[in-house]
Amino acid sequence: MKTLPNMLIAQSGGPSMVINQSLVGAVLAARKTKRFGKIYGALHGIQGILDEKVIDLKRESRATLEKVAATPSAALGSVRRKPTGDDCLAIFDTLRRLNVEAFFYIGGNDSAETLNIVRRTARKSGFPLPCVHIPKTIDNDLRENDHTPGYGSAARFVALAHMGDSLDNEALGGVKINIVMGRHAGFLAAAAALARQRPDDGPHLIYLPERVFDMSRFTTDIQRVTRRLGRCVATVSEGITGPSGNPIAADFIHEADAHGNIQLSGSGALGDILAAEVRRATGIQRVRADTFGYLQRSFFGAVSPVDAREARQVGEQAVAAALSGCDSVSIAISRVSSQPYSVVYRTVPLSKVARHTRRMPAKFIRRSGNNVTSAFLEYARPLVGPLPEIGRFSQ
Amino acid sequence: MKTLPNMLIAQSGGPSMVINQSLVGAVLAARKTKRFGKIYGALHGIQGILDEKVIDLKRESRATLEKVAATPSAALGSVRRKPTGDDCLAIFDTLRRLNVEAFFYIGGNDSAETLNIVRRTARKSGFPLPCVHIPKTIDNDLRENDHTPGYGSAARFVALAHMGDSLDNEALGGVKINIVMGRHAGFLAAAAALARQRPDDGPHLIYLPERVFDMSRFTTDIQRVTRRLGRCVATVSEGITGPSGNPIAADFIHEADAHGNIQLSGSGALGDILAAEVRRATGIQRVRADTFGYLQRSFFGAVSPVDAREARQVGEQAVAAALSGCDSVSIAISRVSSQPYSVVYRTVPLSKVARHTRRMPAKFIRRSGNNVTSAFLEYARPLVGPLPEIGRFSQ
Repeated sequence: MKTLPNMLIAQSGGPSMVINQSLVGAVLAARKTKRFGKIYGALHGIQGILDEKVIDLKRESRATLEKVAATPSAALGSVRRKPTGDDCLAIFDTLRRLNVEAFFYIGGNDSAETLNIVRRTARKSGFPLPCVHIPKTIDNDLRENDHTPGYGSAARFVALAHMGDSLDNEALGGVKINIVMGRHAGFLAAAAALARQRPDDGPHLIYLPERVFDMSRFTTDIQRVTRRLGRCVATVSEGITGPSGNPIAADFIHEADAHGNIQLSGSGALGDILAAEVRRATGIQRVRADTFGYLQRSFFGAVSPVDAREARQVGEQAVAAALSGCDSVSIAISRVSSQPYSVVYRTVPLSKVARHTRRMPAKFIRRSGNNVTSAFLEYARPLVGPLPEIGRFSQ
Repeated sequence: MKTLPNMLIAQSGGPSMVINQSLVGAVLAARKTKRFGKIYGALHGIQGILDEKVIDLKRESRATLEKVAATPSAALGSVRRKPTGDDCLAIFDTLRRLNVEAFFYIGGNDSAETLNIVRRTARKSGFPLPCVHIPKTIDNDLRENDHTPGYGSAARFVALAHMGDSLDNEALGGVKINIVMGRHAGFLAAAAALARQRPDDGPHLIYLPERVFDMSRFTTDIQRVTRRLGRCVATVSEGITGPSGNPIAADFIHEADAHGNIQLSGSGALGDILAAEVRRATGIQRVRADTFGYLQRSFFGAVSPVDAREARQVGEQAVAAALSGCDSVSIAISRVSSQPYSVVYRTVPLSKVARHTRRMPAKFIRRSGNNVTSAFLEYARPLVGPLPEIGRFSQ
């Protein structure tokens, strides 16, 4: 009897609320086909291959897999590591020993780049290693995609948070600044606009990395809204950049990861700087800033059902693609229509999603540069799912 | 036909996810008795009485009231204002003109103190004004109460946030510091412990305002956990105080409210200070801090069902107390048993809950001072309600 080849799957980059859906989608699809012997899960991405820390996901019960799928964060652990040439050779040694003939990597553009490097080096070394990338990023900044798994749930968290926060601001007045994740793309900050159910609801202003951030314009905008409403909620993407092209936050934060990205999250510095500047420039006394931080990608209880379903399906599609002979590809989501909402999955060359990031298209950003358009709301609404209705007195 | 007297109700202090339940509970109970002519709601607490900005809550439909009840934040608006003698006289003028013969004020210990001042001044002025305080505070620091409406839902948010955040920390390693609200009492920070489902789950350390905070002890604790697990989640109450008795945050934040409270929330400063100190003292590279901020009291979708029910009931009880002739009282929650969970409501003298705060009892804090006891978990669990199960692989 011929021994079946094995497959290996791993998770990489920042976790999300639904990255485990993609993992479980791929594992269950692979189990169903009976084309693989073992289904290895490497712990902490390529680090687990280098350390030969792998588990066999065929041994997990369906019930366990479903519980894992419904759990935020990366159940296999994650990593941010860009492989060197030596790393690649060590990875191939392990994969050969494990008889792995298909490699699946779930992650964003940096993880796609990691897979791209591994695949290119494998080709040079004459090692046949079909690689499939499974998309994931709350930033929604993967090229070739209408949107990415992870975004809908993070956007749902941001919308739910702003619904309550705008009411909180309405109750006590003053200025509230909310810092939202998004290194290069403003999609997640833009999702705060979904919190509005009436014209005067917050957020009243939204600042995105796609537009040059001007501090005096920012404080003037806030002053104008506060004069009109006695209050103002401003949503600011952590990735806002000044005229020099440098992130505003970068002037104050000096840590970078293996891919050269400056650490923007996990610090309240940007919010505090902006709040201090608003106080100084406007004289408004009550100015508060919250940085939503890692809750945006890990909160237990803000999963968008559409996002969960699509995350599962990209995992399934990745296995189908590998079995039909695809190599060096990523699974991409294309929208067919918004009403009724429907999508299709395509395979796209890995190199097209690796490394580069996608930004918000101009049609989603108001000309004023401090808000989003109705086209963005139509785009984002189906990804986030129905939001609760805000109750208010009629008087 | 005799004209019925009117009642007035208002909301004060920091909003919560269920303060509207108390408002709606009182309004519906008052409507049912048919003992009041108009049911005035003052906008923004006593400020609305001073400005004569009141609405008649009898004109709101049952459906509207129920939607408001399910909505976080204070639907009537809130205020932080300590009344002067002149304020009180102006308040009495308005209340006389509005024919108000019962005054209900929903809030925490500062709001109870406001009501206490109003009531004392009314007595001196010979103005008969029965006053009933309806308890609300996410800090859970009202005296005479087993717990307070608003706490269970905020604690649920903190627990859900830590469930995901600890998994996120497990995926990528390093140190995560989470700053949780709580000016004088550690109840809310302590609730993070409910996130643990296995022994190694975070938060691994919890620092409370009830114990003197020692920076070098803090960094040593974190280093010890990180050596053992390769990671550490530490929950820190915003109200932690140093050996001098001053809040650690106060050395860096200089704004105070009308009640003399230093502004601890709405800034990421404390978390950033602690993260920098951990980096410096331990040499650990990946250290992140999130400050949960206002989401803890306003998030749309983390309401504890028990908390919502009790918040409704204290509103109902307040109206019943006023109608049975009680004056200068607050409604307090006493626990009858934890298993099965049941409570009773009592009226207590307003002066006993006003101004002063309650802290965590020693039995809830581990002797080490950096964690909570199982007695606390038994206390808090029924208030927060069932939490989702964390899915994990068996290997």
